[in-house]
Amino acid sequence: MRIVSWGLGAMGNGIAKNIIQSGYMKLVGAIDLNHAGKDVGEVLGMDKLGIVVSKDKEIIEKTNPDLVVIATSSFVKEVLPQIEYAVKNHCNVVTIAEEMAFPFDSHPEESLYMDSLARRYGVTILGTGVNPGFVLDTLILSLTGVCNRVDKIVARRINDLSPFGKTVMETQGVGTTPEQFEEGLKTGKIVGHIGFPQSIMMIARALGWNITKIEEERKPIISNVHRETPVVKVEPGMVAGCNHSAKAYIGDEVVIEMQHPQQIHPHLEGVETGDYIEIYGDPDIKLAIKPEIPGGKATIAIATNMIPIVIGAEPGLKTMADLPVPRSVLSIK
Amino acid sequence: MRIVSWGLGAMGNGIAKNIIQSGYMKLVGAIDLNHAGKDVGEVLGMDKLGIVVSKDKEIIEKTNPDLVVIATSSFVKEVLPQIEYAVKNHCNVVTIAEEMAFPFDSHPEESLYMDSLARRYGVTILGTGVNPGFVLDTLILSLTGVCNRVDKIVARRINDLSPFGKTVMETQGVGTTPEQFEEGLKTGKIVGHIGFPQSIMMIARALGWNITKIEEERKPIISNVHRETPVVKVEPGMVAGCNHSAKAYIGDEVVIEMQHPQQIHPHLEGVETGDYIEIYGDPDIKLAIKPEIPGGKATIAIATNMIPIVIGAEPGLKTMADLPVPRSVLSIK
Repeated sequence: MRIVSWGLGAMGNGIAKNIIQSGYMKLVGAIDLNHAGKDVGEVLGMDKLGIVVSKDKEIIEKTNPDLVVIATSSFVKEVLPQIEYAVKNHCNVVTIAEEMAFPFDSHPEESLYMDSLARRYGVTILGTGVNPGFVLDTLILSLTGVCNRVDKIVARRINDLSPFGKTVMETQGVGTTPEQFEEGLKTGKIVGHIGFPQSIMMIARALGWNITKIEEERKPIISNVHRETPVVKVEPGMVAGCNHSAKAYIGDEVVIEMQHPQQIHPHLEGVETGDYIEIYGDPDIKLAIKPEIPGGKATIAIATNMIPIVIGAEPGLKTMADLPVPRSVLSIK
Repeated sequence: MRIVSWGLGAMGNGIAKNIIQSGYMKLVGAIDLNHAGKDVGEVLGMDKLGIVVSKDKEIIEKTNPDLVVIATSSFVKEVLPQIEYAVKNHCNVVTIAEEMAFPFDSHPEESLYMDSLARRYGVTILGTGVNPGFVLDTLILSLTGVCNRVDKIVARRINDLSPFGKTVMETQGVGTTPEQFEEGLKTGKIVGHIGFPQSIMMIARALGWNITKIEEERKPIISNVHRETPVVKVEPGMVAGCNHSAKAYIGDEVVIEMQHPQQIHPHLEGVETGDYIEIYGDPDIKLAIKPEIPGGKATIAIATNMIPIVIGAEPGLKTMADLPVPRSVLSIK
């Protein structure tokens, strides 16, 4: 399996490393403006590979890979031209762009276009990641499989942002004052979690639920204590993160409720991190994963692990709900 | 979707009810020696349906269903002729026979035969259930999907047998003396859980793990207190259930460890029921579902929920690892 990595940020870097270390997937090229001209191995902190990071997408045409991993942006609008170029060169695509996890409702026209393009070129496009892509959608969905009836789904992902870099702190509003936080929400600088509508609609479409409204809410997590990471300082009274939640309705009834408070050092105020899923129906199911599945590592893992499945899948724009259950392909013994 | 139910015991009964209540699947026939001649609705405790339970498999040929649900036995040897007959009549098959959850290693020749037969007739065969079929295999597998490395898997399913009938009590040794329990293991009357080799090999094949040995152990759970259900009485010193466990090795290394103690009223001795999965690797994942996913309800649910997926799947003998993630198809809103 010949792979090109498009984007060598923290996530793309980890995926590329996984591909190289797998022993049976082969990284044949990489595209990244920030690292163009350097040896890929060097960028990944490994031995030199003899492959130079390109600034041009044409490296895809030249190297003729089976699949392109796109880890450049969270948004359909930005990855669409990249996906288009890869598909037109007969390449399958795995992307970690959050909006691509279930683009059919948020971007119906673009989705139809990508689906028909993929079918015409006989390749598969998949958006995945830890969330959206697994914790608050695929995992929930699979649990409903053992239910005779599902009335309501409530899920919480309580995680620790401390390992992340400056960009994440800014988009979550970490280190702002409450006033700056409100301002950041208005200007769109603070966005919270990207993926609630995608996770909700992936579940809803699979269950046959006709969602009539989705409400999202972003609230500042005001710290009572001093919290600090290498990239940000939070004094008492300042914002340690964003408490982002979403409710999906059918008529007046809330049928899916998701909470995803993201902050640095939650333990300093006694908050235990974890992934929690409650399904109300017949039977009820109450699941806890403690601590939470770590975001960065798990996104790197699932993007790599889906590569062989995507290469083997039917052509089209697919989601995690369409494909076989994920599994590790990186631990062959 | 036209369905025939083969077997109307507790599980087959629940699945047939689900099919009827779904509103979009249609039960067109039923086969069961114990209920032959009665109206299906009557057997299910519902209104009369105008469908008479047949004693003959030929009802499949007559009613021409899309799929046959087989809930008659735990063993490949016993369901194979039933599957064969259904497939030769161009029917897809869902069965809850535990050994069918992953028959490729325990029954390689029969599996090859079923797979080629299914392909020749253009239909799909699936073995599923709560366990094997979900808790100790599909769910574990999906969690490895967010791992960059998997070293070892440890899982426990601690459940309560109290709701079950006489047959289950006998196969688990509930109500025996420790001597009778040992004797029952020798004669094969007490079997414990059916499905460890299937769950282990489903995971191992998907991960690319070359298992060299599987060891199973069955120990009596001696009660310290009085325990009682409508069908069995256990005095202190007697057996309240079977502590069945399995270890899978690669060489000398244990790579998968599963424990499945099954007993009546575990809470009477402070044992909390639940499903617990621990994956050691990068990252580690620790999951708990408390209380455990209830066996009977969940088997009925997943068997029904997989029907549309199986009808839509590629031909062949499939497992839960080959098909899209399960999801409830019984709660359309």
